[in-house]
This record gives sequence, structure tokens and C-alpha cells, in this order.
Amino acid sequence: MSVEASPAVHGPAASDVTGAVVDVDIHENMPNLKVLLPYMEPQWQRHITDYGWAGVRSDYPYWPPTAGTGGIRMDAHPDTGGPAGSDLGLMRAQLLDRHDIGMGVLTGQHHFSGMRGWYEFAAAVASAYNDWQIEHWLERDPRLRGSVQIACQEPEAAAREIDRVGGHPRMVQVFLPMITHMPPVGDSFYRPVLDAMQRNGLQLALHVGQATKTPFGYHRYYVEWHSALPQAGMSELISLIFNGTFERYPELNVLLLEVGFTWVPHLMSRLDQQYRELRVEVPWVKRLPSEYLRERVKVTTQPMEQMSLHQLHKYLELMETDEMICFSSDYPHFDFDAPERVVPAGLPEDVKRKIMRENALSFYGVGA
Amino acid sequence: MSVEASPAVHGPAASDVTGAVVDVDIHENMPNLKVLLPYMEPQWQRHITDYGWAGVRSDYPYWPPTAGTGGIRMDAHPDTGGPAGSDLGLMRAQLLDRHDIGMGVLTGQHHFSGMRGWYEFAAAVASAYNDWQIEHWLERDPRLRGSVQIACQEPEAAAREIDRVGGHPRMVQVFLPMITHMPPVGDSFYRPVLDAMQRNGLQLALHVGQATKTPFGYHRYYVEWHSALPQAGMSELISLIFNGTFERYPELNVLLLEVGFTWVPHLMSRLDQQYRELRVEVPWVKRLPSEYLRERVKVTTQPMEQMSLHQLHKYLELMETDEMICFSSDYPHFDFDAPERVVPAGLPEDVKRKIMRENALSFYGVGA
Repeated sequence: MSVEASPAVHGPAASDVTGAVVDVDIHENMPNLKVLLPYMEPQWQRHITDYGWAGVRSDYPYWPPTAGTGGIRMDAHPDTGGPAGSDLGLMRAQLLDRHDIGMGVLTGQHHFSGMRGWYEFAAAVASAYNDWQIEHWLERDPRLRGSVQIACQEPEAAAREIDRVGGHPRMVQVFLPMITHMPPVGDSFYRPVLDAMQRNGLQLALHVGQATKTPFGYHRYYVEWHSALPQAGMSELISLIFNGTFERYPELNVLLLEVGFTWVPHLMSRLDQQYRELRVEVPWVKRLPSEYLRERVKVTTQPMEQMSLHQLHKYLELMETDEMICFSSDYPHFDFDAPERVVPAGLPEDVKRKIMRENALSFYGVGA
Repeated sequence: MSVEASPAVHGPAASDVTGAVVDVDIHENMPNLKVLLPYMEPQWQRHITDYGWAGVRSDYPYWPPTAGTGGIRMDAHPDTGGPAGSDLGLMRAQLLDRHDIGMGVLTGQHHFSGMRGWYEFAAAVASAYNDWQIEHWLERDPRLRGSVQIACQEPEAAAREIDRVGGHPRMVQVFLPMITHMPPVGDSFYRPVLDAMQRNGLQLALHVGQATKTPFGYHRYYVEWHSALPQAGMSELISLIFNGTFERYPELNVLLLEVGFTWVPHLMSRLDQQYRELRVEVPWVKRLPSEYLRERVKVTTQPMEQMSLHQLHKYLELMETDEMICFSSDYPHFDFDAPERVVPAGLPEDVKRKIMRENALSFYGVGA
């Protein structure tokens, strides 16, 4: 598949996004790996057809909350068979149509960047997924936007994949899982990837996954690991800020997925204090960390923590902005958040509109 | 040295603590390792006298902010020679006397629990440090309290050390570094240690150190690593809560040192939400995580983040308690916080008194 590059034109004007909601995290859209075969060369195909490759492995434990169900909404399994989330029609009915979602960003599945060894194969599968995603999802519903999947283990090769499909008008971001056995994303290792993102007008989406560990690994129980996931998000931002990434890439914005937002005031306060104390070590950082966070980073609601209107206001006041938080549903996962219930009642309409729609449109430059 | 066990009597009544301030984190008190020789058997001594053992090693990087100075206050070096913090007289003059500190808790140095291999030697050095600490510091200034140092790699042996010195009336807690290459502290591995703490009426103090990593290891720059240190503290608390440690040990309270406090509202909110969603996995957890945090955990000011009175109030309101935060100076480290400047001006006197003194007294059961 050849895609003509058209940087900085990704999708329609804001007025063309008709629904009230933008959902930036919809995943699990593949019915099975065989759908990728038409987009792969024979040398790679046989690992799916004959040798039984079943996806990226990790040392993720057997944990009851996800072991049986895969951690998904049981009602999202299509009647026609296949895993939850894999039927475009059912997803539209359960998510886009039902919740008045005018734009939804696919975040895929199988975190190819987390594969250990044989990176060429990881890259081939990521590439096939991109082509399949464009043909079978992006071009079948105008509300959908795509994430470029890469195998970041070889940044130069990943950059070529970004150049290959990143110009598609419905591709809005490059997807990177937070992979704690690799360097954090501000490390110079990733420069070819970030260079390619910038020249294709794409943003960076960081998402937790099975390759995301805490300082103590996976801990003992799923609830521990799942509770600690925001830490990897904080570390990625720490890395981006202190390595000067926001200075080097003035167009780069970053979206953190599936790690909530209540930690943002802490991170702003802590990093500003550390910067004041230790900035001599990182002279390439030109501004207070909280300023980069406010201007260049978006965080997402899912999993929405139960809070009163009063508490949400306090978090927003401590963040000193209501332009960082974007709604995300995490469909079709078990902890899906319905847009109607995500913010507490009584939130002023303009703030609600920012969280449910405008902050995401602004992040993707839609209507800018 | 033999110490008579007297559980639950650790130090004086609150009225005997005359200064306005309690400082729960004073370290680096050893002039050199040779001071430990009188407390060690010959088989261990020779590793200091002849073989040049110089302290617990880690793979901590060479980092400019700590490489030259060791990360300490240059004015804390005694005129008599020896490293900063190692002279009781100078420490008294610079810290206890100057800042009206009525009680100061020594948190030691050399994190023996972080040593890899040869745990018997680590235990011998920890044990010698305990005896030296009692004789040369605790018994020379009535304002000082001690931390039992252990080598937790062998929990049964560590428990015996806690029984040996934990009954000393000036010992108030067991010190554990946050060691991310070991299980987090709620893991059943540590039960012999926690059993011993409970029977000796001691609390648990967790402190960051060179063996504390983030999900991505050390990162590239010191400021990154140092910014991310609170994550290990969050993970330790997550582990304690979801492993049911607070239910199993009803007398156990936990103090987190050198990781600040602005992350506490986030952790409360996140853990309550995760508990509501996933509590089926951990039926031994009987209450909301935020309740354990409010009632059983103290956090500390150092390194104090710059904040307005208004912002501090917001953090306290989100925590729904003003009884979690304790003042700590981190003397003699470079980022020492002076008690006079740690809380913003205008904080109500009763709240200030809690932070500067009463919360710590309550944690140690002084005057209870």
C-alpha cells in the first residue's frame, strides 16, 4: 500500500466532527491474526499460518481478573464470533452511535514494540496491522482515526514505517506502549521515531500494556500492578521533559492513555521543585516542567476515579488548566467508562465540553 | 550488647519533648566504617581492616549532582575531619539546637538490606551499626531516637536482630530502604520482620536510596531519577494495602521518608477506585485503601515542594486529613529543609504544630 504524505492535514475541520464526544482510546479491533496475512510477505506469513505465532509474549503473570475473560466487556463479543471489539458494526452500535461519539481514535492491540528479539518480524506484523486498519476500519467509518503501530526496537525501521503510512489523512498519532525494559521515551534512542513523527505531523500516544512494570515489577496481585500503572506514565513524562524533547521537537504533543490524571498536580509540583534544585544538570531544559506539561501533554479520564465535583475542581485548580484532560472510554475493556457518567454532575458546560471533546480536537489539531 | 526488651515503651512522654519540632530523618552519622570494629567478630572485622570493604555497592550511575560532593551540605563537614553529619556536636549545633528540635530520629546510612550476596556479612555490619548508634548517639543526647538497621535479605535473621536491639527505649522504628530488586514490603517474604516489629512495638520506616529504581531503572539523569523516587513509595504502600498487611498487623504504622507528599491524594483516589473494581481478588482487604492510608501511614515534607498556602490547603483537603504529614529535614543532605521555612506563611497554628511535631509524636506513640 502506498500512501501519499500530507503532513499537518489529518482529518476534517472541527465542525465536521458532529458528535458531542471524542474518544481517544478504542482498542482490540482484530478478529484474529490471519486477517493480516494479505498484507505480509510469505516469509512472515508462515509464522502465523504454520508455526502458530500468537502475539507478543511477556512474562505477565496468570492473574484472575484478566485470565479468564482477557479483561474485556463480556457483552462486546460479536454474535458472529470473534473476540470483543473486533466487529466494526457492533463497536459502532455499542460505542460511537450509542454515546454520540463524533471522532474515535483506534489504539490497536498487540504491542509490537514490546516484542523481545526478531524485531524484523515485529515490524512486519505492525506494518500489516497498519494496512489492515486503514482498509477495514479507517476507510469504513469517517468517525474513526488511526494510530501508526511500529516496532520501535529498531528506530530507523520504525521511522520508515511512519513515513510509509503516517501521511494517511486519518492517521493522527504514533502509538508507543510504555515498555519498561526499554529506555523511557525521552532517551536519544527514539530520535529517529520522533523525527518521523514531526515530519508527518503526528502526535505521540503512550499507552500502558503487559510490558509496563512498576519499580517492583508486576507485584503479586493484578490490583497492585493495575494501581501502580500511572507511575510508568510519570516516568515517561519525566524523561521527555528532562531530556529536552519538547525543546527539540516544538510540534510534538504527547497523550497518556489509561493512566488517569489525578497524579498530574503532584508531578507538576515535584518536577518544578527538582528543576529549580538540579537544573544545572540539564541546561537544555528551558522552562519550568509544569509549563511543558500544561502546554504539550494531554492525559485521559480512563479509568475514571470516583470523585465529587468539588474534588474534581480541586484537581483542576492545582493543575492550573482545564485543557489537559481528554475523555477516553477504553472500549471494550472491562473497566470501560461511559461518556455520560464520566464527569461529576454540575461541572460547568464549557469545562465539560473541553474534557469530552475540545481538548482532544486541539491535541490532534483538528479545526486548528 | 544485651538490651532488655520493653515493648511499647519507646521514649518519653510528649511533654518531655521540649523543642517545637520533631525531625524524623537525620542521617549520615558514621565517620568511617572502622568505628564499627569493636562491635564485630574478627571473622567480619578483617573485611574492613584488610580487604577494604567500603559499603554496599549498587549499579548507581556516576551523576554530577552527587558524584563530587556525595550530595551533602558542604558546611556540615566537621572541622575535625570526617564526612558531613558524622560529628554529634556539629549536628547538634547546626540542627537540633539551631532549629529548636526536641526529638530527632536517626535514619542511619549504608542500606545493608540492599546488599547483594553474602547476607551474613550485611547482617553483621547492620548489627554493629545498631550497637554503635546506641552507644555513641542515642545515649549521648536525650533528644535522639534510633532506627534498627537490618539486613532484610534473610528475614528470620533480621527478626532476631530486631529482637536483640528493638527493645532499647530509644529505638522507635525499623528502617527499610525501598529496594526495588526485592519484593515490595507487603509481600509475605517480610512477615518475620513485621512480626518482630510488632512484638517490639516498633514502626516501619521506608526510605529511598541507591537501590531504589523507577519502572525504567535509573533513567539517564540524576534529576529524572530523583524526580521519580516517590513512585517506589507509592508501590510499597500499594503492596502493604493489597496484601492485607494493615489487617494482619493492627499495630503497624508506616512512615515514608524523602518522597514528599503531593502524590497522596492521587494514591487515595486511584486505590479506592481500583479496590472497588477489583476487590474480589483481595478479599483480605477489609476497608477502603484511603482509610488505611489516612490512619496508618505518615509521609514527610522533604524535599518540600514550593507551594502557596492556598495550594497546600488544597492538598490537605484532598487528603481529608492534616494528620499524615511530618516534618523531616534530611540533614545533612544538599536539599536539607529548614523547619522555619518548610510550611508556607499563614498556615493555621494548629495545622503547623501537627506537621512540625504532633503527627510524628503520634506516629511513635510518644505521649500516647
